[in-house]
Amino acid sequence: MYHSKILVTLRQSILDPQGKAVEHGTHSLGYERVRNVRIGKFVELDVDAASREEAEKITKEVSEKLLANPVMEDFSFTIEKK
Amino acid sequence: MYHSKILVTLRQSILDPQGKAVEHGTHSLGYERVRNVRIGKFVELDVDAASREEAEKITKEVSEKLLANPVMEDFSFTIEKK
Repeated sequence: MYHSKILVTLRQSILDPQGKAVEHGTHSLGYERVRNVRIGKFVELDVDAASREEAEKITKEVSEKLLANPVMEDFSFTIEKK
Repeated sequence: MYHSKILVTLRQSILDPQGKAVEHGTHSLGYERVRNVRIGKFVELDVDAASREEAEKITKEVSEKLLANPVMEDFSFTIEKK
């Protein structure tokens, strides 16, 4: 069994209104030195694969097809054996 | 300037219906060996701090007060100098 940790982030060229809202929130709390807040997703999952290569293949395909929007988002992942 | 990467995750004891929905989605796509999907948040931000210690303090406080729900979520972060 392998454990994948996947980060899905908005591309830099895409506006992030949620991040902007959080940034305003930090300033309202008095943390005025916080800048450039960007919000992404963090997905953890297990893959019942026979090899690391197979776990990587499944993680990559699931990220491309389901987790990330290829027009607006990038993803990266790490895999470890459980 | 420092750059913080913050992971906000649901505690293990908390049900994750969004993760369950994604898990069903992976199975519908034919990836039936995907298990235990958990969805969290990934937040990136810059801190205009004079030292790493100050950047860590601000990141920790913002995470506690704004980004994570202390009843249901945990957080962790890394910081690097920009």
